[in-house]
Amino acid sequence: MDAKLTWVDAMRFVGEASSGHAIVLDADHEVGGEDTGMRPSELLLIALGGCSAMDIISILKKKKQDVKHFEINVRGDKATTHPKRFNNIVIEYVVKGKDIDIEAVKRAVEISMTKYCSVKATIENGVPIEHTYKIIDE
Amino acid sequence: MDAKLTWVDAMRFVGEASSGHAIVLDADHEVGGEDTGMRPSELLLIALGGCSAMDIISILKKKKQDVKHFEINVRGDKATTHPKRFNNIVIEYVVKGKDIDIEAVKRAVEISMTKYCSVKATIENGVPIEHTYKIIDE
Repeated sequence: MDAKLTWVDAMRFVGEASSGHAIVLDADHEVGGEDTGMRPSELLLIALGGCSAMDIISILKKKKQDVKHFEINVRGDKATTHPKRFNNIVIEYVVKGKDIDIEAVKRAVEISMTKYCSVKATIENGVPIEHTYKIIDE
Repeated sequence: MDAKLTWVDAMRFVGEASSGHAIVLDADHEVGGEDTGMRPSELLLIALGGCSAMDIISILKKKKQDVKHFEINVRGDKATTHPKRFNNIVIEYVVKGKDIDIEAVKRAVEISMTKYCSVKATIENGVPIEHTYKIIDE
């Protein structure tokens, strides 16, 4: 799997991936950017949440759960001194639907975190990752 | 720093970051996706490359280097079995310009890798990260 970053100007880059999709990355004004795209460390959180999100929706569908809304909130606590690494990441899964089986959600999260999520498996020895979940009946 | 992933349909999600920018994520057709956006693990490579890219362009500008083109290629070797983690990541920096000082590039890469790149600092204990660079005079 490959990715390529090409400098555009100032702190702006275009990132292209082997799937053919592209994204603009940019920095804050205070460090010379123009805020025309995401920060790289935001992309790390989205990569982690997105990876687990796909596992879980896939598992819940197989378990015939009637999911009406599904979101994942990812919070990363960054150190204040350089290199400002993430010291901790917390993933919150929010599943809304009719008669959602709490055990099915719990198991889907567990399978994603321990068996399927490639981003989590890649970075888990670098940063502690916690998770919580919330099920809303509607 | 926060990010939020919201399920759209099938394997498609929208990822929004605290900077206000958003991106579509999707899976391959073979796993039920429609390939309308990047894979999460591609985003991990772009996060890593983008983070270092911003450090380096910033340092090279401060060192008055006449950079005409700058790109970063990131290659990740994934395991073939689940969770298909990255076993190794190689970053290649390509700097084109007039009379670029090789020592300035070498030092910029070193500073990014050891002091500034937050994504690298977050994941380096999870996956080995190597780097190479190429300077093209033009």
